[in-house]
Amino acid sequence: MLKRYGGQTVLFNSPVGIAAAASVVGPKEGEGPLGTKFDRVEKDAMFGVESWEKAESEFVRTAADLAVQKAGAVTGDMDYIIAGDLLNQSTGSIFGLRETMRPYLGIFGACSAMGEGMSIGGMLIDGGFASKVLCLASSHFCSAEKQFRFPLEFGSQRPLTASWTVTGAAGVVLGGTTAGPAVMGCTTGRMVDMGVKDAHNMGAAMAGAAADTIVAHLEDTSRTPDYYDLIVTGDLGYVGQELLLQLMKKRGHDIAHNHADCGIEIFDRDTQDTHSGGSGCACSGVVLAAHFLEKMKQGQIGKMLFVPTGALMSPVSVQQGESIPGIAHAVAIENHK
Amino acid sequence: MLKRYGGQTVLFNSPVGIAAAASVVGPKEGEGPLGTKFDRVEKDAMFGVESWEKAESEFVRTAADLAVQKAGAVTGDMDYIIAGDLLNQSTGSIFGLRETMRPYLGIFGACSAMGEGMSIGGMLIDGGFASKVLCLASSHFCSAEKQFRFPLEFGSQRPLTASWTVTGAAGVVLGGTTAGPAVMGCTTGRMVDMGVKDAHNMGAAMAGAAADTIVAHLEDTSRTPDYYDLIVTGDLGYVGQELLLQLMKKRGHDIAHNHADCGIEIFDRDTQDTHSGGSGCACSGVVLAAHFLEKMKQGQIGKMLFVPTGALMSPVSVQQGESIPGIAHAVAIENHK
Repeated sequence: MLKRYGGQTVLFNSPVGIAAAASVVGPKEGEGPLGTKFDRVEKDAMFGVESWEKAESEFVRTAADLAVQKAGAVTGDMDYIIAGDLLNQSTGSIFGLRETMRPYLGIFGACSAMGEGMSIGGMLIDGGFASKVLCLASSHFCSAEKQFRFPLEFGSQRPLTASWTVTGAAGVVLGGTTAGPAVMGCTTGRMVDMGVKDAHNMGAAMAGAAADTIVAHLEDTSRTPDYYDLIVTGDLGYVGQELLLQLMKKRGHDIAHNHADCGIEIFDRDTQDTHSGGSGCACSGVVLAAHFLEKMKQGQIGKMLFVPTGALMSPVSVQQGESIPGIAHAVAIENHK
Repeated sequence: MLKRYGGQTVLFNSPVGIAAAASVVGPKEGEGPLGTKFDRVEKDAMFGVESWEKAESEFVRTAADLAVQKAGAVTGDMDYIIAGDLLNQSTGSIFGLRETMRPYLGIFGACSAMGEGMSIGGMLIDGGFASKVLCLASSHFCSAEKQFRFPLEFGSQRPLTASWTVTGAAGVVLGGTTAGPAVMGCTTGRMVDMGVKDAHNMGAAMAGAAADTIVAHLEDTSRTPDYYDLIVTGDLGYVGQELLLQLMKKRGHDIAHNHADCGIEIFDRDTQDTHSGGSGCACSGVVLAAHFLEKMKQGQIGKMLFVPTGALMSPVSVQQGESIPGIAHAVAIENHK
């Protein structure tokens, strides 16, 4: 009994409830338009520890604890923990979750981490392998800039195509069948390389992958974009959104009226100087947790296709002249009951 | 209908056949005791390209193609590709698999990658989400040394506790029910931190995790170690093996007579100067593919617990004084029919 529809999509036998979602962000995110909605705004981006990497781990630890608490559970109830971040060898996730003592599945999909984690987690639950799965995604502006681009102290000028890595972490507890937002299925993305080589223009690098996955989801399920109240990408930003809308139109789908991007939602364009918008693994996660899932609970959104996007680059690959493949994983979320 | 047994283990409803496994290694591995068994020994560790990272991607690409061919399939038949390596942002896997155009799930579990991949892949198949899954793991001595330790040109002296990163890649195609080795279930590991801070002694850092996962598997399934003809760890090496056997004894299990380690199998201790043995994501993968699965097919092994081990460190975490958590994922493989 294959639950697969077409090439890349699975639809679950039973909706996988989203038991809880938690968001912890840094000060800049707290000053943004969603500032009051996050579960916790940490005033110190260093989180009281001595390095940015350790701070990122504190964000992860806090988001994990909060998500589990909000689900009315304890960490020991989690059958699997699935986590990913942008740091070399997943330093943020690993040292934030080292003490959890639960089965751990590390993932790497760049900023698509929350999409990949919720997809795997949903399948493990629907497949009968788990009752509760905790999915985490984190990023930190300072650890990311240090690692991928220039030392912060260098004060490099950021081009207008650049996005601003969100400082924070999100935790989502999957499992349960109470009323409310539930994962109905997922479309796992393929790598799509548009030939973009500019690490300061990740929106362009990822737009092709986002279009590829959204079209695959629609074709696999024989749905039109209007099946969804909202199609929400992760961190395409303003540049990537424009490209996505163009690419979708070329493929015969107009999603201009029901597309939103977490990278656009999280910062104020006029006052926060983030250029193309927010990015990073935390971006889609915290905006999902604090904003879109809340809108679903309030009945303002019934059906949402959540499509976190990732730019699969490393400093070494960029320095060696490689282009930046993109990837996007779609998670179909609907209000259950 | 939860397929979960105890805390960390799932046993599948139906055996998930191992349709094929392929191994591609570098020249040093080709000179080792398993040299004649690998599918391909590449004489040039650079694989004809201009960087070690690109070479690692060529190993990945070749292993993927070979595994799919040996399974009598084409890449388009793979419902998911699951891959992991040691390089920053999974550079080896991503650029080796960029053109596959199949749903891609990137993982990070350090050298436990093949265990994590086969566990997720097995669950996706048993859960009804996929018919065929291609799992890949790769590593390269030169790209790993450059990234984790010292520039090769520096010619640093390696302590006797150090292991030698295997150059190569392994591909395993899961799916199908023909007779032969099949995955029966898996025990997903927890992070275990023994407080080891020496990046040149990963065997010690990982031994605790290996013991934790093996004991969890035995307790979850109410089996004794003798249920298995062989319990095979990934890359503990000589130092880690000794610690594992001690830790297992403390937990009441003597596995001295049926334990093997891929890191010990792959190089000759007396002539190849690799000190504690082989390591890297490729180590367990290529030894599984070329050696242990072949022994199963020949009837010399009936039941095997395959336990790839990973040291969850990054150069940054080590430089910041963090210890090295270990992880180990057990995959139960039995001859089917």
